[in-house]
Amino acid sequence: MSITVVGSVAYDSIETPAGRRERCLGGAATYFSLAASFFTDVRVIAVVGEDFGPEQEAVFAARNIDTRGIERAAGKSFFWEGSYLENLNEAKTHSTELNVFASFEPKIPDAYRDSEFLFLANIDPVLQRRVRDAMPNVKLVAGDTMNYWIQDHRPALLEVLKGLDILLINDTEARMLAGNSNLVQAARSVIALGPRTLVVKHGEYGATLFHTSNPKGRRTELRTFRAPALPLKEVIDPTGAGDSFAGGFFGYLASSAAAGELTPAAWRLAMFYGGVMGSFACERFGTERLQDLSRPEIDARFNLLREITHID
Amino acid sequence: MSITVVGSVAYDSIETPAGRRERCLGGAATYFSLAASFFTDVRVIAVVGEDFGPEQEAVFAARNIDTRGIERAAGKSFFWEGSYLENLNEAKTHSTELNVFASFEPKIPDAYRDSEFLFLANIDPVLQRRVRDAMPNVKLVAGDTMNYWIQDHRPALLEVLKGLDILLINDTEARMLAGNSNLVQAARSVIALGPRTLVVKHGEYGATLFHTSNPKGRRTELRTFRAPALPLKEVIDPTGAGDSFAGGFFGYLASSAAAGELTPAAWRLAMFYGGVMGSFACERFGTERLQDLSRPEIDARFNLLREITHID
Repeated sequence: MSITVVGSVAYDSIETPAGRRERCLGGAATYFSLAASFFTDVRVIAVVGEDFGPEQEAVFAARNIDTRGIERAAGKSFFWEGSYLENLNEAKTHSTELNVFASFEPKIPDAYRDSEFLFLANIDPVLQRRVRDAMPNVKLVAGDTMNYWIQDHRPALLEVLKGLDILLINDTEARMLAGNSNLVQAARSVIALGPRTLVVKHGEYGATLFHTSNPKGRRTELRTFRAPALPLKEVIDPTGAGDSFAGGFFGYLASSAAAGELTPAAWRLAMFYGGVMGSFACERFGTERLQDLSRPEIDARFNLLREITHID
Repeated sequence: MSITVVGSVAYDSIETPAGRRERCLGGAATYFSLAASFFTDVRVIAVVGEDFGPEQEAVFAARNIDTRGIERAAGKSFFWEGSYLENLNEAKTHSTELNVFASFEPKIPDAYRDSEFLFLANIDPVLQRRVRDAMPNVKLVAGDTMNYWIQDHRPALLEVLKGLDILLINDTEARMLAGNSNLVQAARSVIALGPRTLVVKHGEYGATLFHTSNPKGRRTELRTFRAPALPLKEVIDPTGAGDSFAGGFFGYLASSAAAGELTPAAWRLAMFYGGVMGSFACERFGTERLQDLSRPEIDARFNLLREITHID
C-alpha cells in the first residue's frame, strides 16, 4: 500500500567528527521517503525553493518516489546547519532558516488521495492536522514531532495526537510530552492522548514499541516490543537516522498490510527494519548511504541484526 | 561450578524518588552473590566491621552463600550514601566511608581454592590482582571496575585486565578506558588490553557483549551480542543493578560450564539472565527484591524478556 508523507525537503550543512558537508540534500520527508521506498510506493508533499534543481529531483526519481506534491516556490529551500562535535547522539543547531517553509500550505495532489498510509513528519502541528483532515480515508496514520512543538505548541500538537495511530518520538520527547521520566508510565500517558501505538527511539541503543488495543483504557496492559540497534563501527553522520527509522518501520508496515492483516509479528519485523534503515543512514553524510543502498544489503543487515540479538 | 567473589559487603543509605532507606545491606559482592546464588554455589571474600551481625549474616545463609571468607574486623563496615533524585540512571554520591575496607587484605579460605570461576567486583585493582594471582587454577575470571580506578589507578588496573577473561563495565567506563566514544572501537581497544570478552552495560537499555577468540589479533572480527533490558513500570532503587547483572550473567555461565562446554548459545543466555537479575534488583530498595526472589519468578521474567525482544 502506498504512503503519502508530508514534511521538510531541505538543505543541511553538517559537521561531525568525521568532517563537514555544505548544503547536502536533507529534511525529514527526504530521509523518510528514501528509506520507505525500499518497501513500498512513496509520495511526498513538501515545498522547496528555486535552489532545488534536477540533481535533487533525480535523487527521488532514482527511488521511484512520487514528487508531484513537492511545490516549487520563489525563494530558497528550508536550510539547517548543525554539528555533532561533542556528542554524536545530539545535534547542536547553529542556524535554521525556514525560507519557503515559512508560508508552506500543503496541497494534496489528486493522485495521492488513494494512499492508504499517511506519515506526518516533524513540522508545525497545525499543518500536520490539516493534511490529516484532508485525507480522512487513510487506513493508518503515523507521525513525528519534536521538543519545540511539545513545549511551545502543545494545544495544536494534542489535536494532532488525537488523529494518529502511531507516534514515533525519542526518549527525551516522550518524557517531555508525558511529564514523566519513567518510560513505561510515559508511554501509558502518551497513548491516552490518542495514538494506540507509541514507538520511542533510543538512538544507538534501539527502540521500544508500546501498543494497546484499547486506547481509552489506561489500565489495560500495554504490549511491548524492544528492538536493539546495531552497534556501528563508525558513525559518520547521525542526521536523519530517526526519520530513516520511521521510513523503514512504516514502509515495512505498508508492505505487510498490502499482503494482509497487520499481525503482531509484522509490527516486530517493522521495528527491526526501522533499526536497519536508521543504521544505514549513519554510515555516510546526509542521504548518501540511502541513495546507493540495495535491497540485498537491507536483507543482509536485517539478518545480522536478528543474529546478534536472538538467543536461538 | 562454584564462583568465588571478592568485593565489598557494605551498608548503603539511599534516596530515590520512591523514598529513602538508611543503612541497607549493600556492596557489590552482596548484590553479585545474591544474584549468582540462583544459578550456582557462591563463596564470598570481603571484610565487615562490628556492625555486621546475625541479621545480615542470615541474608547470605538464606541463599546458601558461603561466608567463611568474610573477615570480621574491629571498626565499622564500608558505608556509602547516595541519591538518584534527578536521574535514576546515575547515582550522586554524598559520602563514602571506607572504614574497615581501608586496610582490607583479602584472605582466601582453603575451602574456596577449588572454585573454577572467580569474580573480581569493583575494588582497588591492587587487591583484585592479588586475589587473581592467589587463584591461578580458576577456569574463568570476570571483573568489574569504575571511573575512579580508570582515571587515577590506570597502571594497576591494566595489570588486572591482563588476567581477566571477561570485563563488565558500563558505557561511560568503556569509553573512558578506551579513550574512544564509539562503542565498537572502544570494545576493540579494551579487548586488546587483555579480556577476550567485554560486556558493556547500558542501564535501562540493556547490554552488549563483544568477544574475540583471538585477544592479540586486533583485526579479527568481534562477535557481538546485544540484549535489551526489560522496560520497568517502576524503578524503586537502581543501586546494585549492575552487580546483579554480573551475578546473573556469571552465575548462569558457571552453571552452564558445569553442564559442558560454554557454547555461543550459553553466552547469549547469560546476557539475558544478567538482564533479568538486574531488573529485579531495581524493584525494591537495596537487596530486598533479591532476598525474596524465587527461581520460577526468574524463569517467568526470562520468558517475558525473550518474548518482548524476539521477532519469532
